[in-house]
Amino acid sequence: MPSSDPSPAPIDAGTVAIYGVGLIGGSLAAALKERGIARRVLGVGRNRERLDAARAMGLIDESFVDADAAARESDLLVFCTPVDQIAAGVRRAAPHCRPGTLITDAGSVKGPICHELEGVLPDGVTFLGSHPIAGSEKAGFEHSKSDLYQGKVCVLTPTASTPKAAIERLRTFWSSVGSRVLEMSPEEHDTALAMTSHAPHVIASALAAILPENFRQFTGTGFRDTTRIAAGDADLWVAILGQNASAVLDVLNEYDRTLAEFRTALKMDDRATLRRLLELGKIHRDAL
Amino acid sequence: MPSSDPSPAPIDAGTVAIYGVGLIGGSLAAALKERGIARRVLGVGRNRERLDAARAMGLIDESFVDADAAARESDLLVFCTPVDQIAAGVRRAAPHCRPGTLITDAGSVKGPICHELEGVLPDGVTFLGSHPIAGSEKAGFEHSKSDLYQGKVCVLTPTASTPKAAIERLRTFWSSVGSRVLEMSPEEHDTALAMTSHAPHVIASALAAILPENFRQFTGTGFRDTTRIAAGDADLWVAILGQNASAVLDVLNEYDRTLAEFRTALKMDDRATLRRLLELGKIHRDAL
Repeated sequence: MPSSDPSPAPIDAGTVAIYGVGLIGGSLAAALKERGIARRVLGVGRNRERLDAARAMGLIDESFVDADAAARESDLLVFCTPVDQIAAGVRRAAPHCRPGTLITDAGSVKGPICHELEGVLPDGVTFLGSHPIAGSEKAGFEHSKSDLYQGKVCVLTPTASTPKAAIERLRTFWSSVGSRVLEMSPEEHDTALAMTSHAPHVIASALAAILPENFRQFTGTGFRDTTRIAAGDADLWVAILGQNASAVLDVLNEYDRTLAEFRTALKMDDRATLRRLLELGKIHRDAL
Repeated sequence: MPSSDPSPAPIDAGTVAIYGVGLIGGSLAAALKERGIARRVLGVGRNRERLDAARAMGLIDESFVDADAAARESDLLVFCTPVDQIAAGVRRAAPHCRPGTLITDAGSVKGPICHELEGVLPDGVTFLGSHPIAGSEKAGFEHSKSDLYQGKVCVLTPTASTPKAAIERLRTFWSSVGSRVLEMSPEEHDTALAMTSHAPHVIASALAAILPENFRQFTGTGFRDTTRIAAGDADLWVAILGQNASAVLDVLNEYDRTLAEFRTALKMDDRATLRRLLELGKIHRDAL
């Protein structure tokens, strides 16, 4: 997992089409325009009014409800749609791309997408998965931030068939918006993200789910922070969890064992074990 | 649980002794001095150098390593020591207090403390438990904030024997530093806080505990927020969890059942149940 210089010289990414202009796509568009990385930024979606509003905000240069037309005009396509729509979107767009076009995404699950797109795209059109580890529980391009990717890790997930030139091109692209670029296999990525993002979403959501209404007034900043991600869009998370269920279950099983140790220690008033577990958590958290 | 006006006219609390000048005690001292609520603020502790540093910062007026001497000079004693040291500290100080002295605390567990102090203090000296629901994972008076209690709930836990005048006096005191004051029995308080603070600490700590070192770089703001409270001092939390173990276990058992529902839904690819659980969490979180 080599890392690259987080602030290289600006590049010319040509015409970049962003499919799905929400918080993730909108923030990428904002970064591209602010840093002069793309000649044109096309926003692609189904809702013309929303796209025009993003254009009025200066996030994108042009609005496209015709996904095929945007594909024809672009050098780089970035799919920022929900994870369960990425592979289908790429398969529909690819036949309209010129040879040399690179397609990527920003989905937080990589295995199923990369697997589905392996060997099915037209000659000269490459898909290489990306996952910029940045986001928010907020949705919508109105919350876009041009520095969302600054200093954040972006994982590229090449496979054995990915051309080296595509890796370099995408590495330069994400570096140019400030990301620290790493490479992993799609499966390694999904195992890591199950631990650092997907299972934590379940853990936070389950805690929020059991809070009785009359206890809300007794929550402090601790409860609020611990459950903040539970405010994320439910449908987006159903898709993410569904696509990475096996790795998430592995983490939840391990989590369950640790929680059981806590419960046994509480039941037995075993303060030495309680202290050991709490200190382990503190050491790991302090290291972040 | 009636609430009171959060910003009443300033009061004269006389001489206030703060036992334990850390983040909680230091922030209270800062609020008292900034708002002119106390004539004198005494800082009481075992470490003379630390107390003198707090005095140099302007948090307290005088340093006392002699806890009995501070008790003799004060109208109000506030114990901001770890929860497992509060009752013993109050029992030691009370015989040195003048009649009319009120003693309270800031501990996040109330049942064991209030129970131990029921009926054992000298005539004319009253203990009434407080829990200002405010804090930080940071420790030490250096992190004190004079507005820590502003707009936060402070729970008073009177028992059948608590004089009404003591309740009114303490209600006015916490209101004067900006808190919204509620009253509950010590047991009701401990049940509520097990849900909103103590079990969440275990839940966050267990998650931090299982994070492998090589996955740290794949954590985003979500993981960091979810585990923030795991950075709290382990010994403080051993004491809190140990004093409220039964109520915490009840919450963890319920949490475990909800987590099991999530796991079954993931295993069965039951997206309707996943969505229902995630939406329940989102509704509760959005309501905070």
